[in-house]
Amino acid sequence: MSTNRVFNFSAGPSTLPLSVLEKAASELINYKGTGMSVMEMSHRGKAYLEIFDETKADLKRIMKIPDTHEILFMHGGATLQFSGIPMNLIGKTGKADYAVTGNFSNVAMKEAKKYGEINVACNSEDRNHTYIPTQENIKVSADASYFHYCSNNTIFGTEWKYIPETGDIPLVCDMSSNILSGNLDVSKFGLIYAGVQKNMAPAGAAVVIINKDLAGNEHPLTPKLMSYKVMIDSDSMQNTPPCYTIYMLGLVLKWLDAQGGLDAMEKLKVERAKYLYDVLDDSKMFMGFAEPDARSYMNVTFRTTSEELDDKFIKEAKAAGFDTLKGHRVVGGMRASIYNAMPVEGTKKLAEFMRDFEVKNK
Amino acid sequence: MSTNRVFNFSAGPSTLPLSVLEKAASELINYKGTGMSVMEMSHRGKAYLEIFDETKADLKRIMKIPDTHEILFMHGGATLQFSGIPMNLIGKTGKADYAVTGNFSNVAMKEAKKYGEINVACNSEDRNHTYIPTQENIKVSADASYFHYCSNNTIFGTEWKYIPETGDIPLVCDMSSNILSGNLDVSKFGLIYAGVQKNMAPAGAAVVIINKDLAGNEHPLTPKLMSYKVMIDSDSMQNTPPCYTIYMLGLVLKWLDAQGGLDAMEKLKVERAKYLYDVLDDSKMFMGFAEPDARSYMNVTFRTTSEELDDKFIKEAKAAGFDTLKGHRVVGGMRASIYNAMPVEGTKKLAEFMRDFEVKNK
Repeated sequence: MSTNRVFNFSAGPSTLPLSVLEKAASELINYKGTGMSVMEMSHRGKAYLEIFDETKADLKRIMKIPDTHEILFMHGGATLQFSGIPMNLIGKTGKADYAVTGNFSNVAMKEAKKYGEINVACNSEDRNHTYIPTQENIKVSADASYFHYCSNNTIFGTEWKYIPETGDIPLVCDMSSNILSGNLDVSKFGLIYAGVQKNMAPAGAAVVIINKDLAGNEHPLTPKLMSYKVMIDSDSMQNTPPCYTIYMLGLVLKWLDAQGGLDAMEKLKVERAKYLYDVLDDSKMFMGFAEPDARSYMNVTFRTTSEELDDKFIKEAKAAGFDTLKGHRVVGGMRASIYNAMPVEGTKKLAEFMRDFEVKNK
Repeated sequence: MSTNRVFNFSAGPSTLPLSVLEKAASELINYKGTGMSVMEMSHRGKAYLEIFDETKADLKRIMKIPDTHEILFMHGGATLQFSGIPMNLIGKTGKADYAVTGNFSNVAMKEAKKYGEINVACNSEDRNHTYIPTQENIKVSADASYFHYCSNNTIFGTEWKYIPETGDIPLVCDMSSNILSGNLDVSKFGLIYAGVQKNMAPAGAAVVIINKDLAGNEHPLTPKLMSYKVMIDSDSMQNTPPCYTIYMLGLVLKWLDAQGGLDAMEKLKVERAKYLYDVLDDSKMFMGFAEPDARSYMNVTFRTTSEELDDKFIKEAKAAGFDTLKGHRVVGGMRASIYNAMPVEGTKKLAEFMRDFEVKNK
């Protein structure tokens, strides 16, 4: 099958494994002899419930999610959880800690202020979010209902390489852009959440993994569909879930299994990123945005010596089959988002293209 | 192409036009030479924005939506709007009117009670929601912030055949299960909303059509993504929208255009439903649930003389290629949901099957 696919470096929605798309296309009109598409099935019917249950079981197994925690498929991406988390969790003490290390953690923090008193536990804005604060530089409050951080900063291209130590304060983490990219001890977290449109599926849902002990204390004005307790009690079926997105997540999980699971993702992310960071280290033209020890395995942010040259690079790269490399407007320059589904070949070839570009544009 | 498709009578998610599914399958891996799937595209990129803008423009044209109103693509289906509507609109007077004519209008009413004082303007529960109250039986409050009703009751199979007259009180309508099924004067409504998973697209979004004058007075605790003002100001792109669902809506709208638009849907819904209601009128075995003048064009609810016979019918119908006919547990019996995408052939053949079944099971 000739597909003429590009290498797609979009930050999200982002590239999906080709075999997953082929599988989806092949069964789009008639799923496994049911005579209908997954898009058309009753979410309460046997065929769809099999997909739903298997996807949930696969995620639990792959991420080694303990029985203390429940997996929820929620509407609205991570952003709706920026409101949902404080609405559900801040009531315990009325306070929460937020680590601000980029755009989305900042947006989450501001949204949380609607619902309680927020302590900014650390803020990397002083060096334009190019780094991740060390444990010593995080101020955890003794009376916080939870501590919130974002483990990978998609826009700035930085990533937490450690899990912050917060004692008895439940850890809440936005893993939208690095969930499933490596091994993780889920038991350390009170709540993990992720918009699915990077490492999991097409846009249109969020996965929430919550320690069940945290549910049930939501603000009385919490919309029913945003209550973790309601969603736990209804197994994410309080209303029609985003069925097809969950089906696509299921296909991605089967693909991930076939690659070797999270052990394989852990190795691949290092291999994939190394091609690009090696160019940044060697080059006199390309400069990385993130400080080296904070470099993200998922989003590589960089620029050249001028905006004109950035534009030329993005244009020529696109013509050569490297798509969506323009950086976010907040940071400028370029960004190569290299999630699980990006073939190693993609960063290897982009690195070669960058080295060639530098030679040609000296 | 041999597809072995069944006639799918699911209440939602529900059948989609075969040509729409074929189109989606054909461009799933590589959309119009972009080298990527619509599922993988940046929602800020040129290719996706064209899809988004065209879908919005097509909906505006097809429904003749006036410039006073804005189309929003929201997360979470209609159920999240059960909370969003009072959070955004009830603040004006602290009160709202709700017409209760079925399950979802009742759920919406209960959810609204979290946010203000609710007057139940009418309630068809006295006859088990088999009818729609007349204008004379609706009690509109002079100080309501809005009047809410659900124009088609999916579970009970009843439908409003008129638009209630509420004077200056803005009319808010849940049209989840009959939007796009016929001509409509949108200007009469303050707000129309619909989960997309019946007449519009696969599950995973809601369309809100709002008179812009109503936005901007939301409760301070309204989640950012649920604020109509925020969504209007960001053109539904406050975060990553459910991109693929919106793309599918776009394909459905192009199909609808090709059928002859809402004029054609208006005629087809009558033709489609007549086959089944004629059986109910003629039969000594099959009995309709809804009172004749309240019968829905979208959901035909009925039963036989016993639960055993119902089960036999559902089982034999499935074997004959008529799928998902089991009624909702609240009503029991059978339900044939016959939205826009159900071919007339589907109800014609089901009607024949019903007549045969009656003869064979006398």
